[in-house]
Amino acid sequence: MLEELKERVYKANMELPKYGLVTFTWGNVSEIDRESGYFAIKPSGVEYDKLTPDDMVIMDLEGKKIEGRYNPSSDTATHIELYKAFTDIGGIVHTHSPWATSWAQAGRKIPCYGTTHADYIYGEVPCVRCLEGSEFEEYEKNTGIVIANAFKERDYKAVPAVLCKNHGPFTWGRDGMEAVHNAVVLEEVAKMAARCEMINPQANPAPQELQDKHYYRKHGDNAYYGQGRQKPE
Amino acid sequence: MLEELKERVYKANMELPKYGLVTFTWGNVSEIDRESGYFAIKPSGVEYDKLTPDDMVIMDLEGKKIEGRYNPSSDTATHIELYKAFTDIGGIVHTHSPWATSWAQAGRKIPCYGTTHADYIYGEVPCVRCLEGSEFEEYEKNTGIVIANAFKERDYKAVPAVLCKNHGPFTWGRDGMEAVHNAVVLEEVAKMAARCEMINPQANPAPQELQDKHYYRKHGDNAYYGQGRQKPE
Amino acid sequence: MLEELKERVYKANMELPKYGLVTFTWGNVSEIDRESGYFAIKPSGVEYDKLTPDDMVIMDLEGKKIEGRYNPSSDTATHIELYKAFTDIGGIVHTHSPWATSWAQAGRKIPCYGTTHADYIYGEVPCVRCLEGSEFEEYEKNTGIVIANAFKERDYKAVPAVLCKNHGPFTWGRDGMEAVHNAVVLEEVAKMAARCEMINPQANPAPQELQDKHYYRKHGDNAYYGQGRQKPE
Amino acid sequence: MLEELKERVYKANMELPKYGLVTFTWGNVSEIDRESGYFAIKPSGVEYDKLTPDDMVIMDLEGKKIEGRYNPSSDTATHIELYKAFTDIGGIVHTHSPWATSWAQAGRKIPCYGTTHADYIYGEVPCVRCLEGSEFEEYEKNTGIVIANAFKERDYKAVPAVLCKNHGPFTWGRDGMEAVHNAVVLEEVAKMAARCEMINPQANPAPQELQDKHYYRKHGDNAYYGQGRQKPE
Repeated sequence: MLEELKERVYKANMELPKYGLVTFTWGNVSEIDRESGYFAIKPSGVEYDKLTPDDMVIMDLEGKKIEGRYNPSSDTATHIELYKAFTDIGGIVHTHSPWATSWAQAGRKIPCYGTTHADYIYGEVPCVRCLEGSEFEEYEKNTGIVIANAFKERDYKAVPAVLCKNHGPFTWGRDGMEAVHNAVVLEEVAKMAARCEMINPQANPAPQELQDKHYYRKHGDNAYYGQGRQKPE
Repeated sequence: MLEELKERVYKANMELPKYGLVTFTWGNVSEIDRESGYFAIKPSGVEYDKLTPDDMVIMDLEGKKIEGRYNPSSDTATHIELYKAFTDIGGIVHTHSPWATSWAQAGRKIPCYGTTHADYIYGEVPCVRCLEGSEFEEYEKNTGIVIANAFKERDYKAVPAVLCKNHGPFTWGRDGMEAVHNAVVLEEVAKMAARCEMINPQANPAPQELQDKHYYRKHGDNAYYGQGRQKPE
Repeated sequence: MLEELKERVYKANMELPKYGLVTFTWGNVSEIDRESGYFAIKPSGVEYDKLTPDDMVIMDLEGKKIEGRYNPSSDTATHIELYKAFTDIGGIVHTHSPWATSWAQAGRKIPCYGTTHADYIYGEVPCVRCLEGSEFEEYEKNTGIVIANAFKERDYKAVPAVLCKNHGPFTWGRDGMEAVHNAVVLEEVAKMAARCEMINPQANPAPQELQDKHYYRKHGDNAYYGQGRQKPE
Repeated sequence: MLEELKERVYKANMELPKYGLVTFTWGNVSEIDRESGYFAIKPSGVEYDKLTPDDMVIMDLEGKKIEGRYNPSSDTATHIELYKAFTDIGGIVHTHSPWATSWAQAGRKIPCYGTTHADYIYGEVPCVRCLEGSEFEEYEKNTGIVIANAFKERDYKAVPAVLCKNHGPFTWGRDGMEAVHNAVVLEEVAKMAARCEMINPQANPAPQELQDKHYYRKHGDNAYYGQGRQKPE
C-alpha cells in the first residue's frame, strides 16, 4: 500500500515542473490514505530531477515520520492541518507558481471573470491573511489553521484553492493528481484575471448565472461534461 | 470519407497544444462535410496526448451522433448553430487561449491596431454579450445563436473570429486547419493589442486605408501575397 | 556564388523561428551581394519547416526576378529601397515579433533605457509614420522610402532598426545573420522597455554618457568587447 | 586545481541559457579559488553553444591573465572589485535577465513582497546609482566600486543580489553555482514583484516578522529547511 502511495505522490510531484509551476524545489504534493491516516509527501529541498518514488516520506497526522530517509517538506505541518479540517480531500499541493503568487503578494482574492474559472472554482479564490505575532512560532501549522478557519464559511469542495497573503497558493482535490490539476487551473486563472484587469480596469465578475451554469456543467448530479468519469464530487 | 474527415479533424485538434492554445482539454476543433451534412468533432474531456483519429465523434446538424464511442465535445451545440448560420465555412475552433480569453473576460472587442490583425481579420474582433435568464437552459446552443445574430450585420468570411463575453473565443475557416490558423492569429493579435495599449493608452486603431490595403493584399481577386494558393475566398 | 548566397539566406531565415520572432510565415530575411547587385530573399508565404536553400529567390535591385521557382516575399520592394538608401548594409530582416510590433502599433519610438539597448543601438529606435493616400498604391516600395527618408538625419549604421507605425519592425546589418541578430536585440529591448515603464512610469532614458560608453565599447576603433572580430564597422 | 575550477565555471555558465537568463552572450559567471587568489571567468563574446571548459580564462585579482587563449569577459574588472570587497563569496554572476534588467532600467529597488523573496534575500534588492563623469573612464572597475560602497551598510551574505541602474543585475554566492541559483531567484522575484504591483498598485511589502521567519528558516544556526546541507552561511 505504501509503495503504491509513494509512487502516486512521486508522479504527482513530477507534474509540477512539467506544467511550469515550480522553480528549483519550490513546491510539494502530498496524498493521504484515509484508512491508515498515513500520507506521503515530497522530501524537503531535494531537486526534482533527482527525485525517485522511494524518496517520498510517509507521515501520520500527528506529524510523526513513519518511513523515509529524508526530512519531509517544510510545509508538512500545513498539509496536516488541511487534511484534518477538510476531511473529504485526498491530496494537497503547494507551489510558488508565478501568477498565483503575484496575487498572493498583492493580497487580493481572484474574482471569477469567466468560465475557465467557473468550470473549476465556484466564486472567487480567497486570499487569507498573513500570520501575526506569536503565530510565527509554529509558522507552518498556523498557516494551515488560518486557511481552515477561512473555509468555515465556504465549501472547500467547491473552492479547491486558496492564496496565503505574502506567500503563495495551496490547492487540493480528491487525490494528489487532482490537486495538481487544480494548481494548474489556478495559475491559468490567475494569469487571465490579471490580464483581464489590465485590458479593462473596470471589468466586472462574470454574472452569477454563468458561474452557476459552468460549475454545475462539470460538478454535481447533473454534470454532463466529459465521459462521465470526471465528476469531482 | 468519414475516416478521412476524422483524420483531418484529429490533426487539426493536435495543432492546438502545439501552438500553446490549450491547457488540459480546454479546446476543440470540428470540420464539416457539407455534402453529407456530417461533421467530426473532438470527444469531450479526453486528454490530447491520448487522442487518436478514431476517437473523433461524427455528428449531424440535428445533434444526432452518427458514429463514435465517446460523447462529443460539450460545445457541440454551438458548433451546430455556427455551421447553420455561416453556410460557407468548413471548420470551427473553440479554445480558452489566454490572451483572447482575457479580452473576452474584459468584455472588450479587439481594435485593429496594425497589419498583423488586418492581414487576417477585417476590422475589430467583436465581443458578443453574455447569455441571460432562460438562455442558460440551452447554454451551448444559445451561445451559437448569440454569435450568429451578431454577424447578421457583419461579413463572417472577413471576420473569422469572435469573443464571447466572460467565456472565450471561437474562430472559423474554410476547414478545420484554417480555423486553427485563425485561432493562432487571434491569440497573437490579442496579445499585441493588450501590450500596445499598455505601451500607449491613447493608441488609435490603424487608419482605414492601411486596414483595407493589408486585407486585400491577401484576400479577394487582387490578392498577391503568397504563391497564389492561400486565398481564403 | 548564388548557391552560397541562397544557403546563407536560408540559414538566416531559419534563425527567425528559432528565436521566437515569427509565427507562421510572418517574417523574411534577405542578403545582398553588392558586386553583382543581386540579393536572395525568402519566398512569399512558404512555411518555415518546408523551406530549403533552393527555395530562396534571387532578385536584382530593379525588382526583376533572376532565379527561383517561387514569388519573392511580398515585402521585396521595401528591401530594395533600403538596399538603395543604406549603401553599406548587406542584410535586412522584417518580422512581426510581438514586443517590437506592439511598440509599432502604439506608434512610439523606443527610448534607450539601459546598456542592453546601448550596446547595439545608439539612441532611441525611431518609429516612422504610416503611409497616406496615394502612397498605398505602391505600399511596399513607399514603406521603404518613408524609412529611408527618416534616416536622412540619422546614422543607419549606429541605429540598425526601425519601427513602422501600425505595422512592425525592420532591422539590418552587414549581412543577413547580423540583421537577424539585431532583430533579436530589438525584440529583447522592446520587451524590457515596456516592462521598465510598467515598473516606473516616470523612468528616464539612460544618461548620454552611459549610452556613449556602451556603444563605443563594442563599436568603432576603440572597441574592446569580444575577441576582436565582432566590430560592426 | 585550475582544470577543476574551469570545469566548474564552465558548468555554471551553461546554466544561464538553461534557465533562460541570457540571450546571445549577455552574461557571465566566475568562481574564485581563495587560496591561490585565481578566478576563472567566461571569455568575452563567445557563444554559449561553442563554449568548452578549456575556453574559461584564469585571472588573478590584479587583473592579470594567468591562462587562456581568449580575452576574459569585459565585466572582469567588476568581478575583481566584488571579490576584493566581499571576502567570503566564491562566485559571481552578471546577466541581462529581462525582469531584473527592467527593474534596473526603471531605477527602482525591488521590495520584498513575499516569502519567495524572503527565503533567499533579506529585505529589498538595492539598486545602485549610474556612474558619473570621470567614473566612465574605468567603467567596469567603477561599477564594482559603486556596488561595494552600497554594501558598506548592508550584509552582502544576506543580500546576494544588486541592480545597477540603467544596466542590469549582479548576484553572488559561496561558489559559481550558488551565484547562478541566486540569479534565477532574482529573476523570478523581479517578475512577481512587477506583477504584484500591476495587480495591486498599493501593495505593501511583507511584514518584517514574515521576512525574518522565512529568511531564518533557511539561514543561520536554526535553519530547518532541506536536508541539513543547504545553509549558505
